[in-house]
Formats: sequence, C-alpha cells, structure tokens
Amino acid sequence: MQESLFKKLESLYPEMVELRRDFHAEPELAFEEEVTPRKIASYLQNLGIDVRTQVGGRGVVGTIKGKKPGKTVALRADFDALPIQEETGLPFASKIPGKMHACGHDGHTATLLVLAKALVAMRDELEGTVVLIHQFAEEFAPGGAIAMIEDGCLDGVDAIFGTHLWSPLPYGEVGYSYDRLMAASDRFEVNIQGKGGHGALPHETVDAVMVGSSIALMLQQLVSRNVNPLEPAVVTIASFHAGGAFNVISDTAKLEGTVRTFSESVQDQLIARMEETIKGVCEASGATYSFTYAKGYPAVVNNSKMTELLMETAASFHPAEKLHEIEPVMGGEDFSYYLQRVPGAFFFTGAGNEEKGIVYPHHHPKFDIDERAMLVAAKHLGAAALSFLGTGDKK
Amino acid sequence: MQESLFKKLESLYPEMVELRRDFHAEPELAFEEEVTPRKIASYLQNLGIDVRTQVGGRGVVGTIKGKKPGKTVALRADFDALPIQEETGLPFASKIPGKMHACGHDGHTATLLVLAKALVAMRDELEGTVVLIHQFAEEFAPGGAIAMIEDGCLDGVDAIFGTHLWSPLPYGEVGYSYDRLMAASDRFEVNIQGKGGHGALPHETVDAVMVGSSIALMLQQLVSRNVNPLEPAVVTIASFHAGGAFNVISDTAKLEGTVRTFSESVQDQLIARMEETIKGVCEASGATYSFTYAKGYPAVVNNSKMTELLMETAASFHPAEKLHEIEPVMGGEDFSYYLQRVPGAFFFTGAGNEEKGIVYPHHHPKFDIDERAMLVAAKHLGAAALSFLGTGDKK
Amino acid sequence: MQESLFKKLESLYPEMVELRRDFHAEPELAFEEEVTPRKIASYLQNLGIDVRTQVGGRGVVGTIKGKKPGKTVALRADFDALPIQEETGLPFASKIPGKMHACGHDGHTATLLVLAKALVAMRDELEGTVVLIHQFAEEFAPGGAIAMIEDGCLDGVDAIFGTHLWSPLPYGEVGYSYDRLMAASDRFEVNIQGKGGHGALPHETVDAVMVGSSIALMLQQLVSRNVNPLEPAVVTIASFHAGGAFNVISDTAKLEGTVRTFSESVQDQLIARMEETIKGVCEASGATYSFTYAKGYPAVVNNSKMTELLMETAASFHPAEKLHEIEPVMGGEDFSYYLQRVPGAFFFTGAGNEEKGIVYPHHHPKFDIDERAMLVAAKHLGAAALSFLGTGDKK
Amino acid sequence: MQESLFKKLESLYPEMVELRRDFHAEPELAFEEEVTPRKIASYLQNLGIDVRTQVGGRGVVGTIKGKKPGKTVALRADFDALPIQEETGLPFASKIPGKMHACGHDGHTATLLVLAKALVAMRDELEGTVVLIHQFAEEFAPGGAIAMIEDGCLDGVDAIFGTHLWSPLPYGEVGYSYDRLMAASDRFEVNIQGKGGHGALPHETVDAVMVGSSIALMLQQLVSRNVNPLEPAVVTIASFHAGGAFNVISDTAKLEGTVRTFSESVQDQLIARMEETIKGVCEASGATYSFTYAKGYPAVVNNSKMTELLMETAASFHPAEKLHEIEPVMGGEDFSYYLQRVPGAFFFTGAGNEEKGIVYPHHHPKFDIDERAMLVAAKHLGAAALSFLGTGDKK
Repeated sequence: MQESLFKKLESLYPEMVELRRDFHAEPELAFEEEVTPRKIASYLQNLGIDVRTQVGGRGVVGTIKGKKPGKTVALRADFDALPIQEETGLPFASKIPGKMHACGHDGHTATLLVLAKALVAMRDELEGTVVLIHQFAEEFAPGGAIAMIEDGCLDGVDAIFGTHLWSPLPYGEVGYSYDRLMAASDRFEVNIQGKGGHGALPHETVDAVMVGSSIALMLQQLVSRNVNPLEPAVVTIASFHAGGAFNVISDTAKLEGTVRTFSESVQDQLIARMEETIKGVCEASGATYSFTYAKGYPAVVNNSKMTELLMETAASFHPAEKLHEIEPVMGGEDFSYYLQRVPGAFFFTGAGNEEKGIVYPHHHPKFDIDERAMLVAAKHLGAAALSFLGTGDKK
Repeated sequence: MQESLFKKLESLYPEMVELRRDFHAEPELAFEEEVTPRKIASYLQNLGIDVRTQVGGRGVVGTIKGKKPGKTVALRADFDALPIQEETGLPFASKIPGKMHACGHDGHTATLLVLAKALVAMRDELEGTVVLIHQFAEEFAPGGAIAMIEDGCLDGVDAIFGTHLWSPLPYGEVGYSYDRLMAASDRFEVNIQGKGGHGALPHETVDAVMVGSSIALMLQQLVSRNVNPLEPAVVTIASFHAGGAFNVISDTAKLEGTVRTFSESVQDQLIARMEETIKGVCEASGATYSFTYAKGYPAVVNNSKMTELLMETAASFHPAEKLHEIEPVMGGEDFSYYLQRVPGAFFFTGAGNEEKGIVYPHHHPKFDIDERAMLVAAKHLGAAALSFLGTGDKK
Repeated sequence: MQESLFKKLESLYPEMVELRRDFHAEPELAFEEEVTPRKIASYLQNLGIDVRTQVGGRGVVGTIKGKKPGKTVALRADFDALPIQEETGLPFASKIPGKMHACGHDGHTATLLVLAKALVAMRDELEGTVVLIHQFAEEFAPGGAIAMIEDGCLDGVDAIFGTHLWSPLPYGEVGYSYDRLMAASDRFEVNIQGKGGHGALPHETVDAVMVGSSIALMLQQLVSRNVNPLEPAVVTIASFHAGGAFNVISDTAKLEGTVRTFSESVQDQLIARMEETIKGVCEASGATYSFTYAKGYPAVVNNSKMTELLMETAASFHPAEKLHEIEPVMGGEDFSYYLQRVPGAFFFTGAGNEEKGIVYPHHHPKFDIDERAMLVAAKHLGAAALSFLGTGDKK
Repeated sequence: MQESLFKKLESLYPEMVELRRDFHAEPELAFEEEVTPRKIASYLQNLGIDVRTQVGGRGVVGTIKGKKPGKTVALRADFDALPIQEETGLPFASKIPGKMHACGHDGHTATLLVLAKALVAMRDELEGTVVLIHQFAEEFAPGGAIAMIEDGCLDGVDAIFGTHLWSPLPYGEVGYSYDRLMAASDRFEVNIQGKGGHGALPHETVDAVMVGSSIALMLQQLVSRNVNPLEPAVVTIASFHAGGAFNVISDTAKLEGTVRTFSESVQDQLIARMEETIKGVCEASGATYSFTYAKGYPAVVNNSKMTELLMETAASFHPAEKLHEIEPVMGGEDFSYYLQRVPGAFFFTGAGNEEKGIVYPHHHPKFDIDERAMLVAAKHLGAAALSFLGTGDKK
C-alpha cells in the first residue's frame, strides 16, 4: 500500500506546489483566517471527504473512513501566517502587505491536502480512519490546537503525527526525537514601582533602575544555581525600560522576557523562584512590584513508541543516513497539546537548500522552502499513518 | 547711604511687583530671549544708564558709574524661563502656552532693575562702579554666563554678588554658605552594543540588558567605595532603555543619567572611574560601548571673604536668627563661572510662604514666590555692593 | 560459555565477599598504594596469570590469553581509598585511622579478581584475550588511568568495560548510557589583589571583597547566558575567603570552585569566558588577579556500539525492567581516558539497599554497599567480555 | 595667668618626657590597666590633689579647687595601650611583649599630669575648679568614658576639653572643628545560612557564597542611593568567609564589617536598610540569616562656642597659620560621650615629624610622636581651661 501511495503522491507533486503557492500568495494571520479554511474545506469536500468547519473557531477537520475496520490516526497541518512584510521577490510572493507565510504553514497545508487526495483514492484498502486536522492559529498563544481539541478534533483518535518543514535542516534530511523535541515557551512581565525624584537627591527616592538592574542580575542565579544542570532552561529579560529625563530618577521600571523549559516541574520551579527573587529584591529596596507570567505552549514531547513506528517505517524508504536523532529545539509549537492527549510524534522535514539560496531562518522576510520537502513530508506522514493503521488492528 | 537706599527700594516696591508680573506673563526660553532683553535694556536706558546689549548673545549689561572713584562690583540677575505649562491660575500667569517663569528669574530681573533705579539716584555719593549683569539662558547648558564673561561682562569687575529667590526657604529667611553652595551638575550617556538574537538562544548573543544591568550595579561602588566619604557625590542612572519584543534579546541598551559633585577632583575621578567600570564590564561581557560625558555648570563655590562681607552687612539690618549658614544644595547654577573669575558670593533669598500656599518647588507648574522676597533680595544685594565699594576704596 | 561463567562466579561469591572485606579493612590512599597492589598481583599470579606490576606507577595488569585466537578486551577496576574516618561500625571496618574505602573500590577489586579466577578456568574455550586493569589512584587528579595508559596497559586492546558499584541505585538495578555518563570535573582558583586599608577610608583602597563579590555575580551569566542551554554546565564558587579584622578593608580575596561539563567545547568556552569576566571586573575595579584552572578528568562518554553490546548481552540474563538508560551524573571518573582511546562502556551497578540501611552516598563516613552487587557486576563485565570476544572474531 | 602657666609648663617639659617614656615602657591593655592608674593616682596625690580611683572601674579623677569661686572645667586624657608588638627600636620601647602604646595615650597622660602640676601651683589665683579625668579603656568598646560618667566624673562639670596627639598632622599644627570631628564607628556581622551540597549539584543547595556576594553588592546602594549625599557614611564589608573544599557548595557565609556615620539619623537609617537588604536578598535566595550590629562610640561633635573659646584663646599664643579648621576624621573616640553631656571641644595636636622619621600612622608597630607636641597640647588645654574659668565667672 505504501508503494502505491508514494506513486500517487509523486504524480500529484505539481498540484502540491500549485496549492502551496496559492496559499503563499494570500496569507492570513492567526485568529483572522477566513479564506484559507474555506479553500481547505472546499478542496476536501471536492474529494468527497466528510468535513467539519469552524472547529474550535476556524479549524477544518476532514475524516477519511477506510472500507476496512481499524484504528484512527490523525495528521495535522497548521495554516496561519505571520505579520511580516515579505522580501523574497518570488513570483508567488504575498499579495497582502505586512503579512507572509514565513514559517512554512502554506507548505504544511498543501502537503496534507494532497496526501488526503492520495489516501482517498485508496479508501477501499484502508484499515481504519485517517483524521485530517487543518489547524488555525499556531503562531500566537493560546493557539488553535487547544480550541480544536476542546471542540472534539481528537475524539476517537488513537495516534497523531505531524511535521514542520524546517529550513535549518537541508532538503532530504529528517530530524526526529524519541522524547523532547521543542521547548515550552512562556512570557513574563515585571513592573517595578519605586519612588521617583530629582536625580541629585537619590535618598528621597526608591530608584527603579537600580531595583530592575538588581533583579536582572539576581535572576541569573535561577538558571545557574537553582535549575538541575541536566534540565535545559532559559530565562531571558528581553526588554528593560525605565525613566525619561536624564536628571529625574525613575519611579518605575518594566522588564519583559521569555522562559523556555522542557519539563513542567522546572517551569513551575522557575515561576516560583522568579517571584521569590523579584519579591526579595523589591523588599530589600523598598519597592513594590507586579509580576505576570503567561504560560505559552507546553514542550513538544514525543511518544517514544510512536517515534519508533515513524522512524522504522521511514527507514524502509528513506536513506538511513538522512534520518537524524536531533537535539531539542528551544522554540515552541502547540502540537504539544495533541501529544498530551494521544500518543504521537512530531518531526522536522528538512527544507533548506544552500545551493538554491534557501538559507533564511523561519520568521525571516526572505524565508523560503525547497518545495520538494513537501513530498518528503507527505511520504513520511502517509507511511506512518498506514503503518499505524496496519499494525493497529493486528494487535 | 544704606539707609537711604533702603528707603528708596521700599518706596519702589510696587514697581518691582509690576515689573515682575510683566515679565512673568511673557516668558521666553533660554537662547530664545528677544522681548525680555529689549525691555531690560530700555528700562535701564530710560534711567540714563550705559547699556550694552547682545552681550555674549542675548545678555544686557548696564554700568552705573559713581561720581567718586572706587572699585567695581557686579550684581547679576538671570532672565530666562522654562518649557513648562503654568498651572498657577494667577491673574498675571504666562500668556505663552508651554512656557513659564517657574524658577523665579522674573523676580530676579525685577529686583535688579529696581535696585538699579535706586542706585542711579545715589550716583553722586557712589564710590566706584556697579555693573548690572542681566544674564540670558541660565536654565540650559552651556548657559549664558560663560558667553557673557567671554564677551567682557566681568572686565574690570572686582567682586560679584547674586541671589536666587528660593521657595524651599520661607520668606524672610536668608541662606548662605562660606564655601560650597551648589553642586556641579553633569550629564552622561552610555550606549552598549551587544549582539541581539532569539530569546531562547542566549548563547548566540551578547545580552545588552545584562550588560547594562551589570554596569548599573557596578557603578554603585563609585560613590560607595571610590569617592572620599567626606565628599558629596551622586551618580544617578535616570533612564535605562533596551529591547522591544519579549522574545528577542536586545542588542543595545542605553543608560542616561547625571553626576553631581562639589570638587573638580572628585568630578574627574568619577569620570575616569565610570569609564573604567563601563569598559571593564563590557569587556567581561563581550560587548562594546560608547560613553559620553557632558560637564554642566561647575559647583557654586563662594569666596569666604565676600560671604563674610555679605553677611556682616546683612547682620546690620536683617534679624540674625533669619540668616542661616546652610548645607549645600545638589542642584547647579552657572553663577559658578563668575565665581571662578572674581571673588563673590551667591545666596538664597527665602521666597516660600506656607500660609499663602506658596509651597511648590522650583520647576513645578504651580511654582510661585512671595513677592516681598524681592525687596529682601534687593536690600541684601544693594547693601553688599555699597559695603564692598565702601570698604573697597578705603583699603 | 556465559552460563558456565555465571555458575563459577556464583560459587565463588563467598570468596568475593572475603576479598572485599579484606581490602576494606586496609585502605590505602591514591598514590600511596603499596599493600593493595601487592595483594592483587599475588592473587593473580597464584591463578597463573601473567602479571605486570608498577604499571604507570602502582597499577597491576593481568593478561588472560585464551587458547583460541581472537580480539582483546580489557576490564578495569580501581583500588584506592579516601581520606575519610569510617563510621560504619562494620566488623571489617577500616583499621587505618582517617582512611576508608568509602567509594566501593574494594568491591571493584574483589569483583575483578574473582572474575579473573572464573575466566582463567575457561581459558581453553576463550577466543582472544582478557586484560585485567587494576588501577591505582582514581580519586585524585591526575589519577592513575592516564599513567597506566602511557605505560601500555591499553596496547593491543580492542575494547574496554568497567563499572562502578553505585549506592544511589538499589541493588539489582543497572544504569547505562549510550553516550554521556559522567561529567568532566575541573578545579579553579581566583586570587584577587586589591589594595587594603582602613575600613573607614574606602577611597584609599581597592576593596577585594567587592571585587570578589562582583566576580561571583558576573560569573553566573556564563551558565545562564553564554552556554548553550542544551549543554549541561556548572560553575560553582565553593569558597570565598577575604579579610581578617572587621575594620580593615581586605587587599586580597580568594575564590575556589569547580566546573562541570560534558563537552570539550563548552569546557573551553567556560575557561575563556571565566578569564574574560574576571579580567573585566578586575579592570573595572582597579584590581589585578591570578586565575588558575586545572582540568580534571574528561567526561565519561560511552561508545554507543559497545553500550549496545553490553546491554543486549545483559538483556539475555538480567530482568529488562532493571536495566535503565539513565541521565548523566555530574561527578567525574578517569575511566574517561580509556574511552578516549578504545571503544568501551562504563555503567553503574546498583549497590544500595534501603531495607539494610545501605543508604549513604559515596564519600560518606557511613557508606556501604550491598555486597551481592559484586556478583551482578562480575556477571555483566564477564558476559560483556565474552560477548565482545565472541562477536569479535566473527566480524 | 596664661603666661605664668606656660613658663611653668616649659620648665616642666623634661618631666613630661620622662613620664611619657615611663608609661610607654609599661603599656597595659584596655580593661586590664592596673599599674598605670596606680602611678597616675600616686603622682596626683603627691601634688596634694584630691584623687578618686577606680572611677567607673579603672579611671582616676583628680580635682583642683581654685581659691576663688567659679565654674568647673574638665580636662581628659586616656591611658590604655594596644595589643601590638612594638617595632620602633626606641630605648624606652615597650617591655611587654605584644603590647604597645601605639596611639599616643602615654603622651596624653604625661601631658595632663604635668599640666596638673602647673595648675596646682597656681591654685591661689585660680577661679573655679579643674577636674582631671584620667580615662581607662578608650581603645575598645564600650570604652571607659561611659562608665566614668555614670560613676560621676562629670558631676558639676560645666565644660570639657581634650586632645589627641596626632601623627598625621606635623608637629606645631593644631586641627579643630566647630562641629563634627570624628565619626561614629560601629561593627556588624552577618551570618548567612544556606544549604550546602555537592559542587556539581547546585540545584540541591542554597549557595551561601552567592547569597553573600549578592548582599555585598546590594549593600553598596545604601551609601550610593539611600543616604543623603551631604552626609558622610561608610559601609565596609571587611571580611567574607565561606566554604572549604573546592567542590563542596558552602552552607554558610560570614560577613563582617564596619559602619561610619556622623549623625544618629543616618546611623539608624543604615541599620534599618542593612537589615532590609540582607533580609530581602536572603528571602530572594531561600536562605536565612542573623544580623548583629554593635554600635560603637558616637560621633565626636564639638560644641561650636567651646571651639570658639578654645581657638580664640589659641590665637593669642599660637601662630594663626598653624591653626587649621579640618575636615572630620572617619575614626572614632569615646570623648563623644562627654560631649553629649557637657559643652566642650576635642582637637588634634600635630605630633608627626617627617625629618625625624615620625611618619607612621596610629596603631602601627613603628608609631611614635614628636614629644614636643605634649607641650603644645598642655598649653592649649591649660589656656582653654583658664580662659573658660576666667570668662565663666564673669558671665
């Protein structure tokens, strides 16, 4: 079955490219998607696939029921774009000023649509069900995944697979992990309230610049001393703003930043230690504070069995030396929510190509993908789905 | 002579008030004064006083030559206003939006003009010469004093006196110092150049927030450890600005602030130690920096003999318990330039009045003065001038 | 062959215990071992094994040549003790005041000696050679391994295995890693030279307490900001000593500590960043410094193929649920030097037992082992050796 | 009268030197004085002076009643030595190992004894009473002054004068102040309790070195930001001790130091801010602490009228250019207690002499004085006493 699937995919590759370019030209931001989900729904409906729209808001879910009984496997692609002004100069570049598919979600969507077309054609032989999750709003927390799950997109699903087209990996390579793949990415804000005053009279003030600077320094000890050295963790104070006139001591300071972790216990430890540190320094200084901490997406932690299934399947058709167990990536993804509920695996499909000048990082105005990566992604996802369904009903 | 001077001043007090209110209603900013110096020059010319205009730019200098030979004493009043929107609600409040005489320079000017009128009337008995220095641009560095001096306003001058109407002191009180009265007030700016990057990948960056915070903390040791504890000194980082997005490590940080000192050697020590500290922390962190330090007005340091002359004269007519030797004030004044060249004394004339609600600090939108303070100021300045000229030719 | 080896080992278990207790009672410190290597050499010679003594100083190497041709595999046990006063109250406790086998090396030695006895008995069937490396001085850098290697103990060796009896793991458990098992453990010392003086006159000094404290704080940014978050790293300032009298500013400060890393590039990065930081802060403060950094043992990084061979062999006789892939340990071992030269694997053999009160950590005065762990260790080492030799000549 | 006093003193100068050298050879530490007070009492009794011994413990008080009625003036000299091994090589050097008159108290005592002898001779003309306060234990808090006062040494006293032979001032010079002369000198100790542990496992500890370093840095802001810049203040952390082995994170850190201030309100502010800072940083870090603060002697603050009397009298016999109004000194003295109770003045009598090699600071093993300074001191003290008594009964 895998072989016939791959033949179909190969023959449909030009359509994949066409679809991707179409999505690319008309990007829509997270929580504002209208045209994109309509196109997706219409494409799937034209294939005769059962489609639910407005799932969790703006999501689209298609269901391909095989003629034979079996398990249910979900495949997910996200479809939102970014508030970036495209600078690629591509013929199919974004027509919408200030918006761009600079993260490859156009490719994800095209990949999954064409894979659906290929799978539909094999419905007679298919054991079990394939659920196609076209997700909105991956780029901005709280993201679309959680809403789609609450709206039932995982109901009855036994396993899930997803991929990200990944420009830091060259085309042809695939990166996977049995465990941690992507970090939890949180956001925090500290507002310090001191007491302003004349720059020449510090003793009549509580100097918010000094309170903020002291907090910044003390917070370094959280990662250097408090977190288990074996646990990756980042506490970044990305911005620090205090004061106006050069001779007026500032009464306030605002610090904003991000925290990255892979384990909930480290995340909780850091939140608690941050507040203790901020509180202690403020009390040491006579200042008060507010501290807000917004948890972003949890870490993407793969199921090791599903990763094994994925990679063993991959080994049957993909050159072994191009399948890499990789170190986790510090950036976040809301695929994590699916993985918290059903076993599954997320992986990176190499989409960079130095020779072709496809070297820009994700979220860059010149970001692009080697489109052939979509075919690689479709094969891995499709093969994993078939493999899961095949083994599924035999166990 | 002092007695007849005082009688004249008392009779002219209503004119003093009128003049002050006229100046108050039409404030002009430093380096933009046009109407004010014209009014001053015209007033003095009408008295038959020799007048030089556009001294050092916008200054006005009048010269009253006594009929008898003698020394030359200068009296100074500044006449610029501030970029503040007045909120006093006074009938003679500023007519110019966003500009206000919120520092009492209107009163200084009225005081000196009327004192000139009184002195002119005594020209026959006057031994020596009184120079009237009406200075522009005291509020903003480099100030008008230095330019007026370079343009000759102190040529031939043997001594100088000046006062500031001072709302923190109640009306009737006079504050003086044999030595340091007001601090040198400087301005600095530090620009740190690190290397920006993704908030999750600190190891690929040089985090400018951390460099700035480390500098802020290390700079505290200059005052706490490096400066002689007996030497007052302030190093204030008034503003700290770095970064934008919560998840992007900032490549730059900008710190601005002010330094206050009373001695040039401490000032020079601090400039050197600041640069050493900034340089050391930047090198420790892999960052680079630019450091600009703009010296403001030097400290106002009185001549002790002139202060003695001033206060012994004052003791002859002012209640002793209202003459206070005061602690120096951390704010600056460009009267310091005159004192660097000729012996002299600057003092504070109390102009506050709680009962009348005259309680707002200088530079406040509701700042006001008890106008009677102008008479006190005129008497002290006039008596000191006469006393200096009187003793002058006897020696 | 494995089966007959295991039978022999089981029957020899009482001897293993006896030997271990004998070594335990007479501990010798690193680089001072005399009696222990003599006992070892004599035991091996009595078995008819070729023995080289004083290898690299105080090491003993035995060689068991199988009657059949084949590869060469080395097994290593270390035999030095620690400068700790034993407090176990065991009947066979240390007879030497202030010295104790508090790390299990007595057990390692007994294990390898008895394993040698069992293997010698199978010489006829043995394909290839087993080298028995009895190493001195593991506890103190530079350690005995490097000297024994330079003296040829690995000549002709194709693979090496070793284990540590490990009280944090319960008896019966075995911990392994395909890659990093133990950290590189280094030592550093910073001597700051400021300028002392009277506690009331800080401006005449360079305050070494402040320089030291500033360095301590700035060094935190190395782990929190400079090292890749995915790379475990520790920079510990374990001691800080400065000053004497409460009113004399100290001219010197001494900081000592340790650095732990798993990769040489991180280690090199930290050394460079430490020096930059110390230098920068000293220059910012007007102090000078000396910085000495002594690299300890490199990280213990297993060969993944040898780990696979070890664990696949183990799976044939040990309950699978007791074989754990574990997180790396931050402590160091000079087994790393062997692994830098030949493929091999080091693993932890569980030796704790809560019920028996064997709960104290290594280097504790009450440290003990569940002696049955020696049998587990002997089986794993022996089986791995046979397995390597068996597969060895077939490839 | 002054003239005849001075003649007498001049003729008695050799005795002064002899007495000083006798005391010098036999130093006694604070609170251990036995021989010294016996010698003093006996000398005074031989002069026919009323003597009280064991005043407040080990003090000696003599009373010279003039034949004429009048006020009462006290003169004070302290007589304890220091725990220092003398290295002067003088013929009359200390005979007691480890003890030395390295602060000039031997000279103070000789000065006052001989002055007493001169005054006794003038008893007939003397208006009023001179009280001779020979104080024990000036060098170590709580000092002897407070105990002698509580035991009545100031009863009936209207004014007090005292001096310190001062090697930083050249012989011949006299230093005085109308107000603050010497600082309050306090002592503090901070004990931090963290949680120790293995140097490789910081996350299991509360690192006391880091808590201590953070406190050291944060405390700098007290002087740089919290104290009025016009108020001299010093917070010195003189010693920092934490940790032992290089690879064991320290559970404790001990910081000791001194605080110098001139005003009680600044002193109280610093004590409060120190505790707030220490508490805040400990809470930020998860550590606990103890903080002990021992107030030493208060600041020596002269009465301005008594200083005027002292200096106007001095001007009648001492070259004006050798009388210096000096900046306050950061070191302490328990003469402050007398000044808190009666008007008085303390001053410095120059005792250094570069040509003679008398250049070592107080408390130095090579400390010495130009003995002629004793005569200067005796004249100033005697003249001030006579002057006070003379004016005293006339007012």
